[in-house]
Amino acid sequence: MNRLDLILKSHPGHAETQHPGWLACLEACLSCAQVCRSCADACVAEAKGDMLTPCIRRNMDCAAICDATAQVLSRTSQPDWRVVTALLQACAAACGSCATECERHAQMMEHCRVCAEACRECEQACAALGSKAKSCCC
Amino acid sequence: MNRLDLILKSHPGHAETQHPGWLACLEACLSCAQVCRSCADACVAEAKGDMLTPCIRRNMDCAAICDATAQVLSRTSQPDWRVVTALLQACAAACGSCATECERHAQMMEHCRVCAEACRECEQACAALGSKAKSCCC
Amino acid sequence: MNRLDLILKSHPGHAETQHPGWLACLEACLSCAQVCRSCADACVAEAKGDMLTPCIRRNMDCAAICDATAQVLSRTSQPDWRVVTALLQACAAACGSCATECERHAQMMEHCRVCAEACRECEQACAALGSKAKSCCC
Amino acid sequence: MNRLDLILKSHPGHAETQHPGWLACLEACLSCAQVCRSCADACVAEAKGDMLTPCIRRNMDCAAICDATAQVLSRTSQPDWRVVTALLQACAAACGSCATECERHAQMMEHCRVCAEACRECEQACAALGSKAKSCCC
Repeated sequence: MNRLDLILKSHPGHAETQHPGWLACLEACLSCAQVCRSCADACVAEAKGDMLTPCIRRNMDCAAICDATAQVLSRTSQPDWRVVTALLQACAAACGSCATECERHAQMMEHCRVCAEACRECEQACAALGSKAKSCCC
Repeated sequence: MNRLDLILKSHPGHAETQHPGWLACLEACLSCAQVCRSCADACVAEAKGDMLTPCIRRNMDCAAICDATAQVLSRTSQPDWRVVTALLQACAAACGSCATECERHAQMMEHCRVCAEACRECEQACAALGSKAKSCCC
Repeated sequence: MNRLDLILKSHPGHAETQHPGWLACLEACLSCAQVCRSCADACVAEAKGDMLTPCIRRNMDCAAICDATAQVLSRTSQPDWRVVTALLQACAAACGSCATECERHAQMMEHCRVCAEACRECEQACAALGSKAKSCCC
Repeated sequence: MNRLDLILKSHPGHAETQHPGWLACLEACLSCAQVCRSCADACVAEAKGDMLTPCIRRNMDCAAICDATAQVLSRTSQPDWRVVTALLQACAAACGSCATECERHAQMMEHCRVCAEACRECEQACAALGSKAKSCCC
């Protein structure tokens, strides 16, 4: 059991936030935020004129929104499901948008290939948790 | 003209992100994030058992989402309007949820009164920009 | 009295964090983080090859460190002065480094001129609060 | 090889930021930020009057500073070593301070035990990278 799992299990709060989809989505957001930040920096360093400007933009938006989603999912006390659901939709949209842009450069740049992969995984994790949340809690 | 206004005007990018609703929403998010963080700390310091637990939770979620929204709105190069619109909805939801909770304590605690006010303003600014974005750009 | 001032005054905690230097530094960090984020996006949009790569880097580091400093200064309950002092030093270093880089482009790009100004103000506010903290509390 | 490792290796920038201590410190900061955020939420949910107020404060400061450090270490293009070194010192101080507080509750609360462990690891990773940086680059 990893540390993130351990600490969520030792929380005195509600069990509904401790199902596998919640933890999987939290981990996907953390990983995606980090990979997007690295990809943004790599894109800046490529210095390919304005070719990568939209990619840098998508990377940085996606990192910011994944960060916020991870922060919200880190708090398992009394979530407001309506807020969580809306945020998961925004996060899935940001991940999808970043993946689409990165996929255009994936054959040329390894960092964009890895980033697109992380974004697609996070998009799916957000959609999965979001639809579960919608059906049970909103 | 304040510094934030100045720097947005000196950006080489597109004019559509420089209309008054964009700047007003960015400023509302920055202010709301900050006020929510202060309110969370004040609520922790009140040490009123579990009475303020939901308020601390709402404050911190709202701060995280307002932060992300402000970051996204700070980038005026080539926004993805679908992502911006979804994020504005999540931000309005978070602000509304925090305002509703803070309003319950507003008569007893000045920090909750000020926080509810900032959240309502930000909720409206997000809704206003979101509906404009939806009609023109998505 | 603005909202940030109001909410800090309504905090049930210690008075030592409510002196003018604390609030001035908090406001300088908030403003500098925001201006640096805008400058980074403007620099990306300039698409001037690798000329602005170090500027984007300095802007983004400075924004991240100013954000963290603002978060820490937002909490006025029981600060750990040793942590606050070390963080103020890191923040002053980041602001100084970003200002120096932006000043090189200030005549050519208005966003770099405005950013350099915000960074110098924040550098001074951090140094002033840091030296006060060191003499009284560490 | 994990995704973070992969993306750092595909960066077009300088090799000096790709040594094992850099990656180890980045991973320790990411993990510690996350664990501190969870511990803060668990401490709020414990609702033990003001007993955990300093712990919540230390957790949240540590999370903010670890986040900023992780962001700075995510950018491997042209770091300013003086800024990196100062930030690593602040981060080590924040981790040490949070660990000390959490250790006081570690026998009673599992989340504090796990958090203290993550903080001590991160404190050491920051100190190790900081001293290496100081000797070679500042």
